[in-house]
Amino acid sequence: MPTNKLFFASAQDVEAAFYEAIERADLDALMAVWAEDEEIVCIHPGSGRISGYLHIRESWRRIFEGGARLRIRTRVMSTVVNPFAAVHSLIEEVALRGAEEATAAVTATNIYVRGPLGWRMVMHHGSAAPAESSQAPQTLH
Amino acid sequence: MPTNKLFFASAQDVEAAFYEAIERADLDALMAVWAEDEEIVCIHPGSGRISGYLHIRESWRRIFEGGARLRIRTRVMSTVVNPFAAVHSLIEEVALRGAEEATAAVTATNIYVRGPLGWRMVMHHGSAAPAESSQAPQTLH
Repeated sequence: MPTNKLFFASAQDVEAAFYEAIERADLDALMAVWAEDEEIVCIHPGSGRISGYLHIRESWRRIFEGGARLRIRTRVMSTVVNPFAAVHSLIEEVALRGAEEATAAVTATNIYVRGPLGWRMVMHHGSAAPAESSQAPQTLH
Repeated sequence: MPTNKLFFASAQDVEAAFYEAIERADLDALMAVWAEDEEIVCIHPGSGRISGYLHIRESWRRIFEGGARLRIRTRVMSTVVNPFAAVHSLIEEVALRGAEEATAAVTATNIYVRGPLGWRMVMHHGSAAPAESSQAPQTLH
């Protein structure tokens, strides 16, 4: 299945494919949304910075191999867009499938770039968010 | 002091001013690097998403009012740039001044946009990073 040949006409299309692939635990579909570039970056909540296509693929493979199936609802809170780049700031509500009543909130920054093959993800930065009522920053900025 | 009238000729200049202002705990200088826009977003490590100029200003005021002075060394790991936007992926090594031997690592995504008044920050997403040897992502992606 030549998923890397997909053409995404917008950043929104890339983002929809990204979260659908996570929910299906479909590694090929997930990696098809990324630019094939050593400069791409993925930061999983609580983890360090992972860069490069193969390292990012391996990180998701390890997440999926456990067999847990995630259910993710996203709320796009704001976007910054220009003709060649888009930044989406989201809240993800992440739950294990079958246990949707217990969700964890993740704050995500997703960045997309438009190239000759359409739009692709170049950055996913996710971090655990506390309950929404707590907006007090820690001393560590 | 009309710090909001500063002209930043590059994203690098904005970034340097941002971290210098944090180290000096200079709230006016810090806020001068941001675009004056309701869509700007700041995510402090361990905290939720804060958006809008005034809310972001208040979050930094509360960080600075404790009196702790931070020392931040940054390593820019990768950048994505086009004529009107720049994304910098950094590792910040954050320490309290006078206790530089104990640093905490923060993974940061900084996003800059070029407007009529030069470059400005529109997003700072920081999250605590584990020791660099640990690249294993958690199940929560």
